[in-house]
Amino acid sequence: MLHHPYTRIQFPHSGRPPFVAINMVSSLDGKITSGGKLTPGSLGSPFDRKTMNVLRGHFDAVLTGGSTARQHPYYLGVPSHCEKLRKKRGLRAQPLSIILTRRGNLDPAAPLFTDPPRPPLIITSKQGARSLSPKIKGAANIETSAGGVQDFLKLLFTKYGVNTLLVEGGARTNYEFLQAGLVDQLFLTLAPRLVGSAFDLTMAMGERVLENKPRIILLSHFTRQNELFLRYKLNWEEQE
Amino acid sequence: MLHHPYTRIQFPHSGRPPFVAINMVSSLDGKITSGGKLTPGSLGSPFDRKTMNVLRGHFDAVLTGGSTARQHPYYLGVPSHCEKLRKKRGLRAQPLSIILTRRGNLDPAAPLFTDPPRPPLIITSKQGARSLSPKIKGAANIETSAGGVQDFLKLLFTKYGVNTLLVEGGARTNYEFLQAGLVDQLFLTLAPRLVGSAFDLTMAMGERVLENKPRIILLSHFTRQNELFLRYKLNWEEQE
Repeated sequence: MLHHPYTRIQFPHSGRPPFVAINMVSSLDGKITSGGKLTPGSLGSPFDRKTMNVLRGHFDAVLTGGSTARQHPYYLGVPSHCEKLRKKRGLRAQPLSIILTRRGNLDPAAPLFTDPPRPPLIITSKQGARSLSPKIKGAANIETSAGGVQDFLKLLFTKYGVNTLLVEGGARTNYEFLQAGLVDQLFLTLAPRLVGSAFDLTMAMGERVLENKPRIILLSHFTRQNELFLRYKLNWEEQE
Repeated sequence: MLHHPYTRIQFPHSGRPPFVAINMVSSLDGKITSGGKLTPGSLGSPFDRKTMNVLRGHFDAVLTGGSTARQHPYYLGVPSHCEKLRKKRGLRAQPLSIILTRRGNLDPAAPLFTDPPRPPLIITSKQGARSLSPKIKGAANIETSAGGVQDFLKLLFTKYGVNTLLVEGGARTNYEFLQAGLVDQLFLTLAPRLVGSAFDLTMAMGERVLENKPRIILLSHFTRQNELFLRYKLNWEEQE
Protein backbone atom coordinates (compact mmCIF):
# COMPACT_ATOMS: atom_id res chain seq x y z
CA MET A 1 0.00 0.00 0.00
CA LEU A 2 2.77 2.41 0.88
CA HIS A 3 4.93 1.75 -2.17
CA HIS A 4 2.81 3.23 -4.90
CA PRO A 5 3.08 6.51 -6.82
CA TYR A 6 -0.44 7.45 -5.67
CA THR A 7 0.15 6.87 -1.95
CA ARG A 8 1.42 10.39 -1.38
CA ILE A 9 -0.82 12.36 -3.72
CA GLN A 10 -2.95 15.08 -2.23
CA PHE A 11 -6.15 16.63 -3.44
CA PRO A 12 -6.69 20.37 -3.58
CA HIS A 13 -9.82 21.82 -2.04
CA SER A 14 -12.09 22.41 -4.96
CA GLY A 15 -13.98 25.24 -3.34
CA ARG A 16 -17.27 23.37 -3.46
CA PRO A 17 -17.57 20.14 -1.54
CA PRO A 18 -17.19 17.31 -2.12
CA PHE A 19 -14.14 16.84 -4.30
CA VAL A 20 -15.00 14.20 -6.94
CA ALA A 21 -12.67 11.90 -8.85
CA ILE A 22 -13.44 9.08 -11.28
CA ASN A 23 -11.24 5.99 -11.43
CA MET A 24 -11.61 3.61 -14.37
CA VAL A 25 -9.67 1.03 -16.30
CA SER A 26 -10.17 0.85 -20.05
CA SER A 27 -8.83 -1.17 -22.96
CA LEU A 28 -6.92 0.55 -25.76
CA ASP A 29 -10.14 0.59 -27.78
CA GLY A 30 -11.95 2.39 -24.97
CA LYS A 31 -13.95 -0.46 -23.47
CA ILE A 32 -14.61 -0.82 -19.74
CA THR A 33 -16.32 -4.19 -20.15
CA SER A 34 -15.30 -7.29 -22.09
CA GLY A 35 -18.02 -9.55 -23.42
CA GLY A 36 -20.52 -7.49 -21.42
CA LYS A 37 -18.73 -8.22 -18.18
CA LEU A 38 -17.20 -5.81 -15.76
CA THR A 39 -15.23 -8.21 -13.63
CA PRO A 40 -12.18 -7.10 -11.67
CA GLY A 41 -9.06 -8.25 -13.45
CA SER A 42 -10.80 -8.77 -16.79
CA LEU A 43 -9.09 -5.65 -18.12
CA GLY A 44 -6.66 -4.37 -15.51
CA SER A 45 -3.67 -6.12 -13.94
CA PRO A 46 -3.19 -7.03 -10.26
CA PHE A 47 -1.22 -3.78 -10.00
CA ASP A 48 -4.28 -1.91 -11.29
CA ARG A 49 -6.32 -3.57 -8.50
CA LYS A 50 -3.72 -2.33 -6.04
CA THR A 51 -3.97 1.14 -7.58
CA MET A 52 -7.73 1.06 -7.06
CA ASN A 53 -7.22 0.28 -3.37
CA VAL A 54 -4.55 2.96 -2.98
CA LEU A 55 -6.97 5.49 -4.47
CA ARG A 56 -9.86 4.33 -2.30
CA GLY A 57 -7.49 4.91 0.61
CA HIS A 58 -7.73 8.68 -0.02
CA PHE A 59 -11.51 9.09 -0.17
CA ASP A 60 -14.36 9.46 2.32
CA ALA A 61 -16.73 7.57 0.04
CA VAL A 62 -16.68 5.34 -3.04
CA LEU A 63 -19.68 5.29 -5.38
CA THR A 64 -20.87 3.09 -8.27
CA GLY A 65 -24.09 2.87 -10.24
CA GLY A 66 -26.61 0.07 -9.86
CA SER A 67 -25.50 -1.91 -12.95
CA THR A 68 -21.94 -2.01 -11.70
CA ALA A 69 -23.12 -3.01 -8.22
CA ARG A 70 -25.21 -5.83 -9.68
CA GLN A 71 -22.19 -7.19 -11.55
CA HIS A 72 -19.83 -6.76 -8.62
CA PRO A 73 -21.98 -6.68 -5.44
CA TYR A 74 -19.23 -6.09 -2.90
CA TYR A 75 -18.53 -3.34 -0.42
CA LEU A 76 -16.32 -0.71 -2.10
CA GLY A 77 -13.79 -0.76 0.68
CA VAL A 78 -10.07 -1.19 1.22
CA PRO A 79 -8.12 -4.25 2.43
CA SER A 80 -7.70 -4.26 6.20
CA HIS A 81 -3.96 -3.47 5.96
CA CYS A 82 -4.91 -0.12 4.42
CA GLU A 83 -7.09 0.95 7.33
CA LYS A 84 -4.23 2.23 9.50
CA LEU A 85 -3.07 4.66 6.83
CA ARG A 86 -6.63 5.91 6.35
CA LYS A 87 -6.92 6.65 10.06
CA LYS A 88 -3.58 8.45 10.00
CA ARG A 89 -5.08 10.64 7.28
CA GLY A 90 -8.01 11.45 9.52
CA LEU A 91 -10.42 9.24 7.59
CA ARG A 92 -12.72 6.48 8.79
CA ALA A 93 -11.14 3.00 8.60
CA GLN A 94 -13.35 2.16 5.62
CA PRO A 95 -14.79 4.52 3.01
CA LEU A 96 -18.56 4.82 2.83
CA SER A 97 -19.83 2.58 0.03
CA ILE A 98 -22.53 4.30 -2.05
CA ILE A 99 -24.78 2.78 -4.71
CA LEU A 100 -26.61 5.10 -7.08
CA THR A 101 -29.63 3.25 -8.46
CA ARG A 102 -32.77 4.64 -10.01
CA ARG A 103 -34.71 1.37 -9.95
CA GLY A 104 -33.48 -0.02 -6.64
CA ASN A 105 -32.96 -3.42 -8.24
CA LEU A 106 -30.36 -4.87 -5.85
CA ASP A 107 -29.85 -8.37 -4.48
CA PRO A 108 -30.29 -8.55 -0.67
CA ALA A 109 -28.15 -11.72 -0.59
CA ALA A 110 -25.15 -9.83 -2.03
CA PRO A 111 -22.00 -9.57 0.15
CA LEU A 112 -22.53 -5.80 0.02
CA PHE A 113 -25.53 -6.24 2.36
CA THR A 114 -24.79 -9.44 4.27
CA ASP A 115 -21.41 -8.51 5.70
CA PRO A 116 -20.51 -4.85 5.14
CA PRO A 117 -17.87 -3.21 7.36
CA ARG A 118 -20.13 -0.13 7.44
CA PRO A 119 -23.77 0.20 6.37
CA PRO A 120 -23.65 1.13 2.69
CA LEU A 121 -25.66 4.08 1.43
CA ILE A 122 -28.18 3.70 -1.37
CA ILE A 123 -29.24 6.78 -3.29
CA THR A 124 -32.36 6.06 -5.29
CA SER A 125 -35.70 7.41 -6.51
CA LYS A 126 -38.90 7.19 -4.45
CA GLN A 127 -39.99 4.28 -6.62
CA GLY A 128 -36.55 2.66 -6.27
CA ALA A 129 -36.79 2.91 -2.48
CA ARG A 130 -40.11 1.02 -2.58
CA SER A 131 -38.45 -1.76 -4.62
CA LEU A 132 -35.73 -2.37 -2.04
CA SER A 133 -36.22 -5.49 0.09
CA PRO A 134 -36.65 -5.20 3.88
CA LYS A 135 -33.29 -6.96 4.27
CA ILE A 136 -31.56 -4.21 2.33
CA LYS A 137 -33.47 -1.54 4.24
CA GLY A 138 -32.16 -3.11 7.44
CA ALA A 139 -28.57 -3.29 6.28
CA ALA A 140 -28.17 0.01 4.42
CA ASN A 141 -29.01 3.67 4.69
CA ILE A 142 -31.44 4.81 2.02
CA GLU A 143 -31.75 8.29 0.59
CA THR A 144 -34.19 9.33 -2.09
CA SER A 145 -33.19 12.07 -4.48
CA ALA A 146 -35.35 13.45 -7.21
CA GLY A 147 -32.72 15.97 -8.20
CA GLY A 148 -29.49 15.71 -10.08
CA VAL A 149 -25.92 14.94 -9.09
CA GLN A 150 -25.45 18.36 -7.49
CA ASP A 151 -28.32 17.75 -5.06
CA PHE A 152 -27.16 14.47 -3.67
CA LEU A 153 -23.57 15.70 -3.51
CA LYS A 154 -24.83 18.40 -1.16
CA LEU A 155 -26.62 15.77 0.89
CA LEU A 156 -23.49 13.60 1.03
CA PHE A 157 -21.56 16.55 2.38
CA THR A 158 -24.05 17.85 4.90
CA LYS A 159 -25.54 14.60 6.23
CA TYR A 160 -22.74 12.05 5.72
CA GLY A 161 -19.62 14.20 6.05
CA VAL A 162 -18.37 13.22 2.59
CA ASN A 163 -15.66 15.69 1.58
CA THR A 164 -14.10 13.52 -1.08
CA LEU A 165 -15.89 11.08 -3.36
CA LEU A 166 -14.41 8.47 -5.69
CA VAL A 167 -16.69 7.36 -8.53
CA GLU A 168 -15.95 3.95 -10.07
CA GLY A 169 -18.48 3.78 -12.89
CA GLY A 170 -20.29 2.51 -14.70
CA ALA A 171 -20.73 4.23 -18.05
CA ARG A 172 -24.03 5.90 -17.17
CA THR A 173 -22.99 7.05 -13.71
CA ASN A 174 -19.74 8.56 -14.99
CA TYR A 175 -21.73 10.35 -17.70
CA GLU A 176 -24.12 11.88 -15.19
CA PHE A 177 -21.26 13.26 -13.11
CA LEU A 178 -19.46 14.58 -16.20
CA GLN A 179 -22.61 16.04 -17.74
CA ALA A 180 -23.17 17.89 -14.44
CA GLY A 181 -19.62 19.24 -14.66
CA LEU A 182 -18.88 17.89 -11.19
CA VAL A 183 -15.77 15.77 -11.74
CA ASP A 184 -12.49 17.30 -10.57
CA GLN A 185 -10.04 14.59 -11.53
CA LEU A 186 -9.92 11.44 -13.62
CA PHE A 187 -7.71 8.45 -12.91
CA LEU A 188 -7.51 6.28 -15.99
CA THR A 189 -5.68 2.99 -16.33
CA LEU A 190 -5.07 2.15 -19.97
CA ALA A 191 -4.73 -1.63 -20.03
CA PRO A 192 -2.70 -3.19 -22.88
CA ARG A 193 -5.74 -5.01 -24.24
CA LEU A 194 -8.16 -4.83 -27.12
CA VAL A 195 -11.81 -5.86 -26.76
CA GLY A 196 -13.20 -5.07 -30.21
CA SER A 197 -16.92 -5.59 -29.67
CA ALA A 198 -19.45 -2.92 -30.58
CA PHE A 199 -21.73 -3.79 -27.65
CA ASP A 200 -19.21 -3.40 -24.86
CA LEU A 201 -19.32 -0.26 -22.75
CA THR A 202 -17.08 2.80 -22.69
CA MET A 203 -16.20 5.03 -19.77
CA ALA A 204 -18.99 7.56 -20.30
CA MET A 205 -22.23 6.87 -22.16
CA GLY A 206 -25.19 9.22 -22.32
CA GLU A 207 -27.75 10.35 -24.89
CA ARG A 208 -25.73 13.32 -25.99
CA VAL A 209 -22.20 14.60 -26.39
CA LEU A 210 -21.20 16.34 -23.16
CA GLU A 211 -22.53 19.88 -23.18
CA ASN A 212 -19.60 21.32 -21.31
CA LYS A 213 -16.08 20.49 -22.33
CA PRO A 214 -13.58 21.07 -19.56
CA ARG A 215 -9.98 21.91 -20.25
CA ILE A 216 -8.23 18.65 -19.38
CA ILE A 217 -4.73 18.67 -17.96
CA LEU A 218 -2.54 15.58 -17.69
CA LEU A 219 -1.27 15.83 -14.10
CA SER A 220 0.88 12.72 -14.15
CA HIS A 221 1.50 9.48 -15.96
CA PHE A 222 3.54 6.39 -15.31
CA THR A 223 3.80 2.96 -16.87
CA ARG A 224 4.10 -0.47 -15.37
CA GLN A 225 4.46 -3.54 -17.55
CA ASN A 226 2.75 -2.05 -20.61
CA GLU A 227 -0.07 -0.60 -18.54
CA LEU A 228 -0.46 3.19 -18.34
CA PHE A 229 -1.61 5.03 -15.23
CA LEU A 230 -2.94 8.47 -16.06
CA ARG A 231 -4.14 11.25 -13.82
CA TYR A 232 -6.05 14.17 -15.31
CA LYS A 233 -7.44 17.38 -13.91
CA LEU A 234 -10.75 18.61 -15.33
CA ASN A 235 -11.02 22.38 -15.37
CA TRP A 236 -14.69 23.27 -15.98
CA GLU A 237 -14.15 27.00 -15.64
CA GLU A 238 -11.79 27.05 -18.61
CA GLN A 239 -13.86 25.41 -21.35
CA GLU A 240 -12.31 24.05 -24.54
CA MET B 1 8.42 16.87 -40.61
CA LEU B 2 11.97 16.09 -39.48
CA HIS B 3 11.53 17.23 -35.90
CA HIS B 4 9.22 14.58 -34.56
CA PRO B 5 9.84 11.53 -32.35
CA TYR B 6 8.37 9.29 -35.08
CA THR B 7 10.54 10.59 -37.92
CA ARG B 8 13.35 8.13 -37.22
CA ILE B 9 11.36 5.06 -36.21
CA GLN B 10 11.89 1.91 -38.21
CA PHE B 11 9.63 -1.05 -38.71
CA PRO B 12 10.85 -4.62 -38.37
CA HIS B 13 10.10 -7.09 -41.13
CA SER B 14 7.13 -9.03 -39.83
CA GLY B 15 7.95 -12.17 -41.78
CA ARG B 16 4.71 -11.98 -43.73
CA PRO B 17 4.09 -8.98 -45.95
CA PRO B 18 2.80 -6.41 -45.68
CA PHE B 19 3.58 -4.95 -42.29
CA VAL B 20 0.37 -3.36 -40.94
CA ALA B 21 -0.04 -0.56 -38.41
CA ILE B 22 -3.17 1.24 -37.22
CA ASN B 23 -3.07 4.92 -36.35
CA MET B 24 -5.99 6.44 -34.45
CA VAL B 25 -6.82 9.33 -32.16
CA SER B 26 -9.27 8.73 -29.35
CA SER B 27 -10.82 10.69 -26.49
CA LEU B 28 -10.20 9.62 -22.89
CA ASP B 29 -13.57 7.85 -22.96
CA GLY B 30 -12.51 5.86 -26.02
CA LYS B 31 -14.41 7.70 -28.74
CA ILE B 32 -13.02 8.23 -32.24
CA THR B 33 -15.97 10.38 -33.31
CA SER B 34 -17.68 13.30 -31.59
CA GLY B 35 -21.36 13.87 -32.29
CA GLY B 36 -21.11 11.22 -35.00
CA LYS B 37 -18.42 13.13 -36.82
CA LEU B 38 -14.93 12.02 -37.65
CA THR B 39 -13.44 15.32 -38.69
CA PRO B 40 -9.72 15.99 -38.50
CA GLY B 41 -8.99 18.17 -35.53
CA SER B 42 -12.27 17.39 -33.75
CA LEU B 43 -10.39 15.22 -31.28
CA GLY B 44 -6.67 15.54 -31.96
CA SER B 45 -4.48 18.63 -31.88
CA PRO B 46 -2.55 20.20 -34.80
CA PHE B 47 0.45 18.24 -33.49
CA ASP B 48 -1.59 15.04 -33.82
CA ARG B 49 -2.26 15.98 -37.46
CA LYS B 50 1.48 16.39 -37.93
CA THR B 51 2.01 13.00 -36.29
CA MET B 52 -0.42 11.47 -38.77
CA ASN B 53 1.58 12.91 -41.65
CA VAL B 54 4.90 11.80 -40.16
CA LEU B 55 3.51 8.26 -39.86
CA ARG B 56 2.10 8.32 -43.40
CA GLY B 57 5.62 9.26 -44.45
CA HIS B 58 6.81 5.74 -43.54
CA PHE B 59 4.21 3.66 -45.39
CA ASP B 60 3.72 2.42 -48.94
CA ALA B 61 -0.04 2.71 -48.60
CA VAL B 62 -2.68 4.26 -46.34
CA LEU B 63 -6.11 2.63 -46.03
CA THR B 64 -9.49 3.62 -44.60
CA GLY B 65 -12.94 2.09 -44.73
CA GLY B 66 -15.79 3.47 -46.81
CA SER B 67 -17.56 5.29 -43.94
CA THR B 68 -14.40 7.15 -43.05
CA ALA B 69 -13.81 8.00 -46.71
CA ARG B 70 -17.35 9.35 -47.04
CA GLN B 71 -16.82 11.65 -44.04
CA HIS B 72 -13.37 12.72 -45.14
CA PRO B 73 -13.15 12.16 -48.92
CA TYR B 74 -9.54 13.23 -49.44
CA TYR B 75 -6.47 11.46 -50.74
CA LEU B 76 -4.63 9.89 -47.78
CA GLY B 77 -1.34 11.46 -48.72
CA VAL B 78 1.41 13.59 -47.23
CA PRO B 79 2.06 17.34 -47.59
CA SER B 80 4.40 18.07 -50.48
CA HIS B 81 7.28 19.01 -48.15
CA CYS B 82 7.28 15.39 -46.92
CA GLU B 83 7.78 13.89 -50.37
CA LYS B 84 11.56 14.36 -50.44
CA LEU B 85 12.03 12.33 -47.25
CA ARG B 86 9.78 9.57 -48.60
CA LYS B 87 11.92 9.33 -51.73
CA LYS B 88 15.08 9.20 -49.61
CA ARG B 89 13.53 6.22 -47.86
CA GLY B 90 13.02 4.51 -51.21
CA LEU B 91 9.27 5.11 -51.20
CA ARG B 92 7.03 6.70 -53.82
CA ALA B 93 6.53 10.45 -53.31
CA GLN B 94 2.95 9.80 -52.15
CA PRO B 95 1.56 6.69 -50.44
CA LEU B 96 -1.07 4.71 -52.32
CA SER B 97 -4.50 5.72 -51.00
CA ILE B 98 -6.76 2.70 -50.48
CA ILE B 99 -10.49 2.65 -49.71
CA LEU B 100 -12.03 -0.56 -48.41
CA THR B 101 -15.75 -0.47 -49.17
CA ARG B 102 -18.21 -3.33 -49.38
CA ARG B 103 -21.02 -1.29 -50.94
CA GLY B 104 -18.98 0.93 -53.22
CA ASN B 105 -20.97 3.94 -52.08
CA LEU B 106 -18.50 6.73 -52.88
CA ASP B 107 -18.97 10.25 -54.23
CA PRO B 108 -17.31 10.75 -57.64
CA ALA B 109 -17.16 14.51 -57.00
CA ALA B 110 -14.94 14.00 -53.91
CA PRO B 111 -11.42 15.49 -53.98
CA LEU B 112 -10.16 11.91 -53.62
CA PHE B 113 -11.23 11.29 -57.23
CA THR B 114 -11.11 14.71 -58.86
CA ASP B 115 -7.51 15.61 -58.11
CA PRO B 116 -5.54 12.72 -56.62
CA PRO B 117 -1.71 12.75 -56.79
CA ARG B 118 -1.92 9.02 -57.66
CA PRO B 119 -4.93 6.96 -58.71
CA PRO B 120 -6.44 5.66 -55.45
CA LEU B 121 -7.21 1.98 -55.10
CA ILE B 122 -10.69 0.79 -54.18
CA ILE B 123 -11.10 -2.67 -52.74
CA THR B 124 -14.72 -3.72 -52.88
CA SER B 125 -17.15 -6.58 -53.47
CA LYS B 126 -18.41 -7.53 -56.94
CA GLN B 127 -21.66 -5.76 -56.15
CA GLY B 128 -19.76 -2.74 -54.81
CA ALA B 129 -17.77 -2.54 -58.06
CA ARG B 130 -21.02 -2.35 -60.03
CA SER B 131 -22.19 0.55 -57.82
CA LEU B 132 -19.13 2.68 -58.59
CA SER B 133 -19.73 5.51 -61.05
CA PRO B 134 -17.84 5.58 -64.38
CA LYS B 135 -16.04 8.70 -63.15
CA ILE B 136 -14.63 6.78 -60.20
CA LYS B 137 -13.74 3.84 -62.43
CA GLY B 138 -11.78 6.26 -64.62
CA ALA B 139 -9.94 7.88 -61.72
CA ALA B 140 -9.19 4.88 -59.50
CA ASN B 141 -8.00 1.31 -59.68
CA ILE B 142 -10.68 -1.16 -58.60
CA GLU B 143 -10.10 -4.58 -57.10
CA THR B 144 -12.83 -6.98 -56.05
CA SER B 145 -12.17 -9.28 -53.15
CA ALA B 146 -14.58 -11.87 -51.85
CA GLY B 147 -12.12 -13.06 -49.25
CA GLY B 148 -10.96 -11.64 -45.98
CA VAL B 149 -8.23 -9.23 -44.98
CA GLN B 150 -5.49 -11.80 -45.56
CA ASP B 151 -6.49 -12.21 -49.21
CA PHE B 152 -6.39 -8.58 -50.21
CA LEU B 153 -3.20 -8.03 -48.22
CA LYS B 154 -1.59 -10.65 -50.46
CA LEU B 155 -2.96 -8.85 -53.50
CA LEU B 156 -1.63 -5.51 -52.25
CA PHE B 157 1.80 -7.06 -51.88
CA THR B 158 1.99 -8.97 -55.15
CA LYS B 159 0.18 -6.59 -57.49
CA TYR B 160 0.76 -3.16 -55.93
CA GLY B 161 4.11 -3.62 -54.20
CA VAL B 162 2.70 -2.66 -50.81
CA ASN B 163 5.20 -3.78 -48.15
CA THR B 164 3.88 -1.54 -45.41
CA LEU B 165 0.27 -0.51 -44.84
CA LEU B 166 -1.10 2.13 -42.49
CA VAL B 167 -4.77 1.69 -41.51
CA GLU B 168 -6.60 4.81 -40.33
CA GLY B 169 -10.01 3.43 -39.38
CA GLY B 170 -12.83 3.46 -39.04
CA ALA B 171 -14.18 1.28 -36.24
CA ARG B 172 -15.32 -1.56 -38.53
CA THR B 173 -12.18 -1.60 -40.68
CA ASN B 174 -9.88 -1.66 -37.63
CA TYR B 175 -11.97 -4.51 -36.20
CA GLU B 176 -11.62 -6.58 -39.37
CA PHE B 177 -7.84 -6.21 -39.36
CA LEU B 178 -7.65 -7.02 -35.63
CA GLN B 179 -10.06 -9.94 -35.85
CA ALA B 180 -7.86 -11.36 -38.64
CA GLY B 181 -4.83 -10.98 -36.34
CA LEU B 182 -3.04 -8.95 -39.00
CA VAL B 183 -2.07 -5.77 -37.16
CA ASP B 184 1.57 -5.50 -36.12
CA GLN B 185 1.57 -2.14 -34.40
CA LEU B 186 -0.88 0.40 -33.05
CA PHE B 187 -0.25 4.12 -32.86
CA LEU B 188 -2.76 5.70 -30.50
CA THR B 189 -3.13 9.38 -29.69
CA LEU B 190 -5.02 9.87 -26.47
CA ALA B 191 -6.52 13.34 -26.76
CA PRO B 192 -7.32 15.24 -23.54
CA ARG B 193 -11.04 15.29 -24.31
CA LEU B 194 -14.24 13.63 -23.20
CA VAL B 195 -17.09 12.95 -25.63
CA GLY B 196 -19.58 11.14 -23.42
CA SER B 197 -22.18 10.01 -25.94
CA ALA B 198 -23.28 6.38 -26.17
CA PHE B 199 -23.71 6.54 -29.96
CA ASP B 200 -20.22 7.72 -30.86
CA LEU B 201 -17.74 5.21 -32.22
CA THR B 202 -14.76 3.51 -30.63
CA MET B 203 -11.56 2.37 -32.25
CA ALA B 204 -12.68 -1.19 -32.98
CA MET B 205 -16.30 -2.32 -33.28
CA GLY B 206 -17.43 -5.73 -34.43
CA GLU B 207 -20.14 -8.24 -33.52
CA ARG B 208 -17.98 -10.11 -31.06
CA VAL B 209 -15.10 -9.71 -28.66
CA LEU B 210 -11.87 -10.34 -30.57
CA GLU B 211 -11.25 -14.08 -30.76
CA ASN B 212 -7.50 -13.77 -30.49
CA LYS B 213 -5.92 -11.60 -27.85
CA PRO B 214 -2.39 -10.59 -28.74
CA ARG B 215 0.17 -9.82 -26.09
CA ILE B 216 0.44 -6.03 -26.33
CA ILE B 217 3.71 -4.29 -25.61
CA LEU B 218 4.03 -0.55 -25.09
CA LEU B 219 6.97 0.32 -27.34
CA SER B 220 7.08 4.02 -26.57
CA HIS B 221 5.10 6.90 -25.20
CA PHE B 222 5.52 10.63 -25.07
CA THR B 223 3.33 13.56 -24.12
CA ARG B 224 2.80 16.90 -25.68
CA GLN B 225 0.51 19.49 -24.13
CA ASN B 226 -1.70 16.97 -22.28
CA GLU B 227 -1.93 14.73 -25.34
CA LEU B 228 -0.39 11.24 -25.16
CA PHE B 229 1.28 9.55 -28.11
CA LEU B 230 1.43 5.80 -27.66
CA ARG B 231 3.05 3.13 -29.80
CA TYR B 232 2.18 -0.52 -29.16
CA LYS B 233 3.41 -3.79 -30.63
CA LEU B 234 0.82 -6.56 -31.05
CA ASN B 235 2.29 -10.02 -30.65
CA TRP B 236 -0.26 -12.52 -32.00
CA GLU B 237 1.98 -15.54 -31.47
CA GLU B 238 2.07 -14.95 -27.72
CA GLN B 239 -1.61 -14.81 -26.78
CA GLU B 240 -2.83 -13.39 -23.49
